[in-house]
Amino acid sequence: MGKAIPNRSDDYSLWYNEIVKKAGLAENSPVRGCMVIKPYGFAIWEKMQQSLDKMFKDTGHENAYFPLFIPKSYLSREADHVEGFAKECAVVTHYRLKTNEDGDGVVVDPEAKLEEELIVRPTSETVIWDSYKNWIQSYRDLPLLLNQWANVVRWEMRTRLFLRTAEFLWQEGHTAHATKQEAEAETKQMLDVYADFVENYMAVPVVKGVKTESERFAGALDTYCIEAMMQDGKALQAGTSHFLGQNFAKAFDVKFATKEGKEEYVWGTSWGVSTRLMGALIMAHSDDDGLVLPPKLAPIQVVIVPIYKGDEQREAVSKVAKAIKKDLSEKGLSVKFDDRDTHKPGWKFAEYELKGVPIRVAFGPKDLENGTVEIARRDTKEKQVIRLEDISVQVTNLIDEIQKNIFGKALTFRKENTHQADTYEAFKSLLDQGAFVYAHWDGTTETEERIKEETKATIRCIPLDSPEEMGACILTGKVSNRRVLFARAY
Amino acid sequence: MGKAIPNRSDDYSLWYNEIVKKAGLAENSPVRGCMVIKPYGFAIWEKMQQSLDKMFKDTGHENAYFPLFIPKSYLSREADHVEGFAKECAVVTHYRLKTNEDGDGVVVDPEAKLEEELIVRPTSETVIWDSYKNWIQSYRDLPLLLNQWANVVRWEMRTRLFLRTAEFLWQEGHTAHATKQEAEAETKQMLDVYADFVENYMAVPVVKGVKTESERFAGALDTYCIEAMMQDGKALQAGTSHFLGQNFAKAFDVKFATKEGKEEYVWGTSWGVSTRLMGALIMAHSDDDGLVLPPKLAPIQVVIVPIYKGDEQREAVSKVAKAIKKDLSEKGLSVKFDDRDTHKPGWKFAEYELKGVPIRVAFGPKDLENGTVEIARRDTKEKQVIRLEDISVQVTNLIDEIQKNIFGKALTFRKENTHQADTYEAFKSLLDQGAFVYAHWDGTTETEERIKEETKATIRCIPLDSPEEMGACILTGKVSNRRVLFARAY
Repeated sequence: MGKAIPNRSDDYSLWYNEIVKKAGLAENSPVRGCMVIKPYGFAIWEKMQQSLDKMFKDTGHENAYFPLFIPKSYLSREADHVEGFAKECAVVTHYRLKTNEDGDGVVVDPEAKLEEELIVRPTSETVIWDSYKNWIQSYRDLPLLLNQWANVVRWEMRTRLFLRTAEFLWQEGHTAHATKQEAEAETKQMLDVYADFVENYMAVPVVKGVKTESERFAGALDTYCIEAMMQDGKALQAGTSHFLGQNFAKAFDVKFATKEGKEEYVWGTSWGVSTRLMGALIMAHSDDDGLVLPPKLAPIQVVIVPIYKGDEQREAVSKVAKAIKKDLSEKGLSVKFDDRDTHKPGWKFAEYELKGVPIRVAFGPKDLENGTVEIARRDTKEKQVIRLEDISVQVTNLIDEIQKNIFGKALTFRKENTHQADTYEAFKSLLDQGAFVYAHWDGTTETEERIKEETKATIRCIPLDSPEEMGACILTGKVSNRRVLFARAY
Repeated sequence: MGKAIPNRSDDYSLWYNEIVKKAGLAENSPVRGCMVIKPYGFAIWEKMQQSLDKMFKDTGHENAYFPLFIPKSYLSREADHVEGFAKECAVVTHYRLKTNEDGDGVVVDPEAKLEEELIVRPTSETVIWDSYKNWIQSYRDLPLLLNQWANVVRWEMRTRLFLRTAEFLWQEGHTAHATKQEAEAETKQMLDVYADFVENYMAVPVVKGVKTESERFAGALDTYCIEAMMQDGKALQAGTSHFLGQNFAKAFDVKFATKEGKEEYVWGTSWGVSTRLMGALIMAHSDDDGLVLPPKLAPIQVVIVPIYKGDEQREAVSKVAKAIKKDLSEKGLSVKFDDRDTHKPGWKFAEYELKGVPIRVAFGPKDLENGTVEIARRDTKEKQVIRLEDISVQVTNLIDEIQKNIFGKALTFRKENTHQADTYEAFKSLLDQGAFVYAHWDGTTETEERIKEETKATIRCIPLDSPEEMGACILTGKVSNRRVLFARAY
């Protein structure tokens, strides 16, 4: 079998595309910018969903479902919001087709024009706050802590599987609170939940921070984010949590009676992560042989490949392999026994390497004789022969070890590629290498824009843990009291 | 507290609408025909999803995700299919809005017109079979057993919460097989899965059957269905499973190489259930005091309401109530302890009755003295005082007992309201009472249509277990060799 995918160093972008396709994660659909998420890719997304959903529920949130369509006039209610989304949305104008004149196809029926156009939701603040108006009267109705899992559409011109697609899957949390403090605390809590998930499940280290004004969510007062480094040194925004202030409450007239009997506008937040996380997962860990998955999100954690010649060996080997599968499954692991006789063991090895299965167990006639078994880990490619009776302890430990190792490797990589720059020359040179660069900025949108034009780098965030430090803006030399995080980004 | 909802006997339709709203299940949205599924309603749907998803996976299916949009030309590829769906679909014609001339709103940007209109999926056969064309080359690629959980849109003119909405949530299975026999077996297997779910989780008995030609899914050779009886004697189609033959394979040119090296068209099936099941669940079991939920789908299976006066009693009672909660939770039950002091116990009793919580546990100072606790079941309204130490055994048994009782009650109701009719007069009179009527039919679409016009009853299905029996058509007197199931339907 030839090598399935190109090397990262040759063409990082092609490497990514090929992994997505060859590992059976997703592919382009006939609809421009929309993807088909294939079963193996969707199984990973399901594991992400389950973990996140539990975290949301553990922090007191409930799921609900709001309409796919948003009346056009709703978008306009919040000025920044419509500005942010109107330019890239799918617009439904009619509700019927009819047979064409030749009778061999269908055309839009001009008589079935909607009075008001409907927008396929790019995000649901407007339609949700319209409901909140009816649901919230008193402080007793607060906080309202809802989330929905949904598809959304943003008509992106340049799309890329998982990273930027016209339709994508996501969750969007929308909460309403009695006080500013509570809404701010919720915004930060959900940022922490996201960071916890991305670091401890996806094994991708993140920088937590707040966006500059120009990168804020359309309609938010503050946008918090987590930023992750990919293997080319570029940044990927992995999740955002927005403090909406009273913007949507005012746009949709959502007021509540306080304990003291006064009437006040409600405070809001919204927060979301999407199938974009799949892109981050792939780009952060995978190598030139294919996907590398952290065990916590791997649909198959252990694959058992039998090695044999002839039916007699096959039967003997299979018997033990099935016992291994039973043993490991009882430990809560997700195990596949691939006993297809249509493919050779070597083909299977390459296949599961490509698909990022964390542990491969190979078992053949020699093992049968010696009471041994071979285990190979995907992350380091190390193989070892162990005693058969030790397998469940060894594999269980190895699962934890791999999860930690993948995170550690990504963290080391990020450390090695994170720098401070104090001159614009050094700054540009670091960006060209592919790096996170901490540098001083004078705080103006003009400077931010000029740096972006000149270097293609954006301010990913003002990191929450960035210490106060007097300095001079990398571009203008004006005074700055804190470094911000610059990088080129996906 | 006044009575929350009207009686079934006074206005069945209003009773249904009020339960849906008052129990916090769903409400209408500002978008015509689209609903908002509220947290309590969505929690029930989630339980349905989880149970069904496990059943699909246990029968070898995997989840995937296909695009929301379908190019207009795709719909036309299968003649019956376009005929069935073109008249009620949401059409996306543009991909951008722009600020209007007055600058106070947005309008569709005429320059952002799509070359080909996109249809919001009413069902996904076309876009999925287009992918299958690329995924299937050989018999080794078959069977392909996929499912997706998705939202779909059909522009219904008269909508009703859960029962008929423009947007609804559903799952759609789409499978591809090498032989006709295998595809037919899959179609029937999934019908059995649906029947198993509806009877054993939703506690609603169903009749399994096959649709007449005029009621078939647009593009199918056979549509199998399960039909359930609501408390007004009307039928509700709870799920369908379609044998597609080679129709979509031919429309999308999906061929495979057989073991013998021949090239043949693939055989297909599709099957789906939707949020309509929520309507069936509500209408089959609920009563004049509100929702009645089968324990297997109840988000809260047991609610504990403390009874006390003053802080001292409250503390003593709460301590035991919390121990009860812990005890029952450890048995795997979903338990809520409602210790809000903003509402009286009587208010809470009515609230949980309205919400259909299967078991209510009340615990007060007298119980504290006597070592007792009161348990009340929602289905029969029976209350009993039991010894505190027996609670986990008693409640666990009662959960099973309630599940069985609800099903039994629905089955008895259906039996009492299912009849045979041998004259058209008797037939019409039975329908007016609200009944399932088994009657002879001459097998023609004309007769079926005329009966529908004259009685508003449709042939729900040709039941799979209907014995051969010679007879005369209820309308025309022509020969018939089997009774079919007639009813008025939702």
